[in-house]
Amino acid sequence: MNEENKKYITKFPVFEREVNYYETDMMKIVHHSNYVRWFEEARTYLLDFLGYSYARIESEGFMIPVLSVSCEYKKPCRFGEKLKVIAKIDSYNGVRMKIIYEVWNEDLTELRVKGSSSHCFVDKNFNPVIIKKTVPELHRIFEIAKRIGDKIDLI
Amino acid sequence: MNEENKKYITKFPVFEREVNYYETDMMKIVHHSNYVRWFEEARTYLLDFLGYSYARIESEGFMIPVLSVSCEYKKPCRFGEKLKVIAKIDSYNGVRMKIIYEVWNEDLTELRVKGSSSHCFVDKNFNPVIIKKTVPELHRIFEIAKRIGDKIDLI
Amino acid sequence: MNEENKKYITKFPVFEREVNYYETDMMKIVHHSNYVRWFEEARTYLLDFLGYSYARIESEGFMIPVLSVSCEYKKPCRFGEKLKVIAKIDSYNGVRMKIIYEVWNEDLTELRVKGSSSHCFVDKNFNPVIIKKTVPELHRIFEIAKRIGDKIDLI
Amino acid sequence: MNEENKKYITKFPVFEREVNYYETDMMKIVHHSNYVRWFEEARTYLLDFLGYSYARIESEGFMIPVLSVSCEYKKPCRFGEKLKVIAKIDSYNGVRMKIIYEVWNEDLTELRVKGSSSHCFVDKNFNPVIIKKTVPELHRIFEIAKRIGDKIDLI
Repeated sequence: MNEENKKYITKFPVFEREVNYYETDMMKIVHHSNYVRWFEEARTYLLDFLGYSYARIESEGFMIPVLSVSCEYKKPCRFGEKLKVIAKIDSYNGVRMKIIYEVWNEDLTELRVKGSSSHCFVDKNFNPVIIKKTVPELHRIFEIAKRIGDKIDLI
Repeated sequence: MNEENKKYITKFPVFEREVNYYETDMMKIVHHSNYVRWFEEARTYLLDFLGYSYARIESEGFMIPVLSVSCEYKKPCRFGEKLKVIAKIDSYNGVRMKIIYEVWNEDLTELRVKGSSSHCFVDKNFNPVIIKKTVPELHRIFEIAKRIGDKIDLI
Repeated sequence: MNEENKKYITKFPVFEREVNYYETDMMKIVHHSNYVRWFEEARTYLLDFLGYSYARIESEGFMIPVLSVSCEYKKPCRFGEKLKVIAKIDSYNGVRMKIIYEVWNEDLTELRVKGSSSHCFVDKNFNPVIIKKTVPELHRIFEIAKRIGDKIDLI
Repeated sequence: MNEENKKYITKFPVFEREVNYYETDMMKIVHHSNYVRWFEEARTYLLDFLGYSYARIESEGFMIPVLSVSCEYKKPCRFGEKLKVIAKIDSYNGVRMKIIYEVWNEDLTELRVKGSSSHCFVDKNFNPVIIKKTVPELHRIFEIAKRIGDKIDLI
């Protein structure tokens, strides 16, 4: 990660995460399935940072289910390490949203995992919802978050 | 496990379970937290065997939450092993139920884990329910299952 | 899934899987992260079927780590359902392997999840291994499995 | 929790933990199996606080496996909540150790879960180790931690 990006990242919501022992497997590394969960944690953290928690979104009757997820494993993470998970909104058009993720070591010198998730917006009965109309405040927040994310170059 | 018990066990619902790779940890054994989940699987299997699935119970508006759980680890389980999980109703009085569990190796010569869970019965709003009155068929099933279990000696 | 494919599938190793209660989330569906684990189970099942278990591979000093994984969620799975997970080798060249997956409902009428995983082959120290040379029997098995998989059309 | 205890607790290592979405189940509460994992996290946090991380212990060739675990569920935890997990050494004699746990809501007014775990000390080959002799520094730390814990009344 280049120096300019690193500086910018310090102002950006970066989710810090230690490895839990129960997340390791007999290869002595974090089992690959856990990163999908870390992505969810980083996504939740981003929403908290933006001032509109996912708990609030669900309590208001909306859900943001996952349509797809992808994960690329560059280097393993091990128990005892502190990692940094960066989540940024890659695209958002009011109906669909794509978030991209990077897991870095503590001093941002080694990329461990990259990934993405795509989402839609639904109500309690899984019927599609147009965020711009039904939750305009959240719509504005996603648009701002999208613009903030644009300033960070993920690999 | 003595020979008589072993013979009886063949007629009893024994849940067979292989170790999943993602259940191992960096000690190269099954992480201890997973056995609580295996107990739940064996409990679900027992209800299926008794002809009243837990999915049906919940679809009828009832839940059987866990009040407490305990687990004693005798010997570790490893990836590649086939285990046998025995769940039996230890006590049932229409309001509370205690289930006990044993995890054995494939040929029932080594006890790996023992444990127990205690439960109550509630409706959708977590209000207590008297099974005998509200779901008499299930009440009868639990009583029969209790009597069947009484014939098996767990350690 | 068309009728011809369905018939063929009956001869193919199809991993049957029920939903565990602990795999559901507060959306009352299987949490999306679990499918990556189901893929691993189906992969392990395929290797067992082929007569060369993953436990044996690791005991002989080799590992097949995951390089990337992807998952597309078509329709949710729910507690109480029996699912069918099909894993087939999509490509294999002795150095890399790609496996693709489909999760179907019990009677193969509804596709729930599709996905893929790509793998390399390493020794205990995570050094690359050329399977064709070091484990020729396994190499042959992967080539046969690839040809069998070619007869099944996944969507 | 009484006021004096609350005050003392502020000086004690209290592990703060938010609920992850993937830890909820279709009862819309944290699945009971996860608390055993939270206990492990709190235990790891306690060791970090004491200045001798569990990662260091394992890197020096020792392990602290779990012999038994118990968990009592008083009230459920839900997504969106911040919890406090208190882990204290209940007994330690150089060969065995018992740790007890309490999960409280954010302002320490509601006890949600209590539990315990017991442990032994082994080397890489699972052979028993006398901590006092082999890792005297860690022995001293456990003794101090035991005395600190004695000042806190858990329920």
